Amino acid sequence: MDPSTRIYLDHAATTPSRPEVIAEMQTFLTEHWRNPSTIYRGGRDARRIYDRLRDRAAAIIGASSREVIFNSGGSEGDNQALIGAALSRNKPGHVIISSIEHSAIEQAAKRLEDWGHTVDCLEVGADGIVDPADLEKLVRDDTFIVSVMMVNNEIGTLQPIEEIGGFCRARGILYHTDAVQGIGYFPVAVHRMKIDMLSLAGHKIYGPRGVGLFFAREGLNLSPLILGGGQELGQRAGTENMSGVAGFVKALELVQQEREEHNAWLLKEREQFIDAILETVPNVMINGHREKRAPNNANLSFLGCEGETLVLRLDSEGLDVSAGSACAAGSVVSSRVIRALNTPEEYGRGAVRFSFGRLNKTGDGRRAAEIVAKVVGEVRAAREDGDFV
Amino acid sequence: MDPSTRIYLDHAATTPSRPEVIAEMQTFLTEHWRNPSTIYRGGRDARRIYDRLRDRAAAIIGASSREVIFNSGGSEGDNQALIGAALSRNKPGHVIISSIEHSAIEQAAKRLEDWGHTVDCLEVGADGIVDPADLEKLVRDDTFIVSVMMVNNEIGTLQPIEEIGGFCRARGILYHTDAVQGIGYFPVAVHRMKIDMLSLAGHKIYGPRGVGLFFAREGLNLSPLILGGGQELGQRAGTENMSGVAGFVKALELVQQEREEHNAWLLKEREQFIDAILETVPNVMINGHREKRAPNNANLSFLGCEGETLVLRLDSEGLDVSAGSACAAGSVVSSRVIRALNTPEEYGRGAVRFSFGRLNKTGDGRRAAEIVAKVVGEVRAAREDGDFV
Repeated sequence: MDPSTRIYLDHAATTPSRPEVIAEMQTFLTEHWRNPSTIYRGGRDARRIYDRLRDRAAAIIGASSREVIFNSGGSEGDNQALIGAALSRNKPGHVIISSIEHSAIEQAAKRLEDWGHTVDCLEVGADGIVDPADLEKLVRDDTFIVSVMMVNNEIGTLQPIEEIGGFCRARGILYHTDAVQGIGYFPVAVHRMKIDMLSLAGHKIYGPRGVGLFFAREGLNLSPLILGGGQELGQRAGTENMSGVAGFVKALELVQQEREEHNAWLLKEREQFIDAILETVPNVMINGHREKRAPNNANLSFLGCEGETLVLRLDSEGLDVSAGSACAAGSVVSSRVIRALNTPEEYGRGAVRFSFGRLNKTGDGRRAAEIVAKVVGEVRAAREDGDFV
Repeated sequence: MDPSTRIYLDHAATTPSRPEVIAEMQTFLTEHWRNPSTIYRGGRDARRIYDRLRDRAAAIIGASSREVIFNSGGSEGDNQALIGAALSRNKPGHVIISSIEHSAIEQAAKRLEDWGHTVDCLEVGADGIVDPADLEKLVRDDTFIVSVMMVNNEIGTLQPIEEIGGFCRARGILYHTDAVQGIGYFPVAVHRMKIDMLSLAGHKIYGPRGVGLFFAREGLNLSPLILGGGQELGQRAGTENMSGVAGFVKALELVQQEREEHNAWLLKEREQFIDAILETVPNVMINGHREKRAPNNANLSFLGCEGETLVLRLDSEGLDVSAGSACAAGSVVSSRVIRALNTPEEYGRGAVRFSFGRLNKTGDGRRAAEIVAKVVGEVRAAREDGDFV
């Protein structure tokens, strides 16, 4: 198949770096490569340039520069939030995470359980959204951190982070949000939203892999996850990845500038896609709230189909999509997130994530819907014939 | 000053990515950006390409591909070794590190002490090299890990890692070596050297920042430092940084191919530099063994001078060097490594690291020596005049 006719609908798995980002990285790789921890002029220049990147990133999320820690990405940030908060305490306590957190939060929370902490899950409704009022039922005197993501990576639902932030701040509980899948579609203002910690990653917003940002509100007592030379305001050791950070900050600025316009375009394509599917394919469920979701995400369940089978068949027809999240690939059980919605099992196993983005052209939504309708029809027909595929 | 006449003698702090490395990264950023955890063809292709990078890196250090974990760099690898080994145990134990380890090991060891482990230091001699026989005196029944670096980052001394590996393996103790400053100048064969864990970083070998390699011998029971989606053989979560890793592996291969020839050149420049200094500057000490050191490193102490003062004055004269390591910049106390050598205090405060590399031209050693002689003379004269600078 001619690669130019393929449709990439997996922007939630990863996005390619934009040309502006690659150009920025190139400049830094060739010109601004000195170690900012050195004290000769070249090193001091590097420090100044790097500090400026921190200022720019801080401005975008409404933080001060002293609150921005560059790191290796979302998983590291998620780990740092939970593990850093836990290690700074002198006794075990209570942790609340949502039932649809990214595996980096889920696994870090398991580590905290190993260390004697207690973890409770804030459940989502059938719409894939937590109810902040439920926090009241879970919270304990020794609750020290709540982690609820901004936008879910599989179903794209937007969580009420500002309400959760307000709840936590009023009680002196730390609030962390994984905004890796959120910042591309919704603005973040950490202080107004009463967020104490926040994780971002470059490669979900057309920036480089292996680079991210961890926001930690000034004055928090957090232990670093990676210890050593005292880089990143003493919060994250390792020689500063200047070119990666430069690319990431560029991507962040472009997202911020173009978000509104791009969202409108995405929403139109995504809605045309969903509408066309609902018109042409029977027995389809939309996973997650219809409106309160990132404008690029459609997570649909097809009765009587296996998500993995659909993904492979759609691939043959020129459509790149994922069942569940990319991070959990290889597993054939129905996704933990979909199960959290209490989706009926006969639907849950047929969940597929379609995520639109800058690699799409106008009309891709309608074209993709046609392909999906065809493939789902064939898969269902084969099943009825006993011809398992 | 015309930048082209400047002499960069701080290759141990960082090195710029080679053009071949940047080209490789560029290719991956534009062509191989898909998420290798996705199951459509583009994702499977990315997985295959990424696996091949792992094979190539493994071949260079004599490991199997199942033993190579790509990460964000040396500090992360050092932390993973100590913290990963400690977390996989169900009770505190005993840890041995050398007295001249990188701060990432030193700080991680402190964390282990916080967790109830006991840490002992293997001291170095005045030549900056540990004596493996001393391990016998330190080792305890509950010693579970020894971490001794391959090449020291400040004084460049080569440690007897193979003997330490043999000692540890015979007693069932894990052996980790930070080879970040070693791999550029000495070949590594992890299995022959009986190394259980090893850390590498891209930016010390003309590769990208923010990328490194952690070798963990197959069958070890290690807890990951960063938990989540199960990437990197389940040992390190986070979407794979394909372009960074591609650049890093390219750099690793180039180092391996050109090491011998480059070493010979470096040795000649470095020796000419040292000889010229010793001839023209009185009261100079060489820190660390004269021969058992990386061929690019000269760490010299100038009686009656402050290292920081020299660095700043040398900067004005067009020479980029560091006092101590770049990672500890900002601190004006004499370096922990220099103190470990029991260098007399009046010399210890005047330690400067000169590290040669690919940015140098033939003759830079002699030219640099002239500048050093001039600056040291001026600084000493100013001191004698009471004109403190």
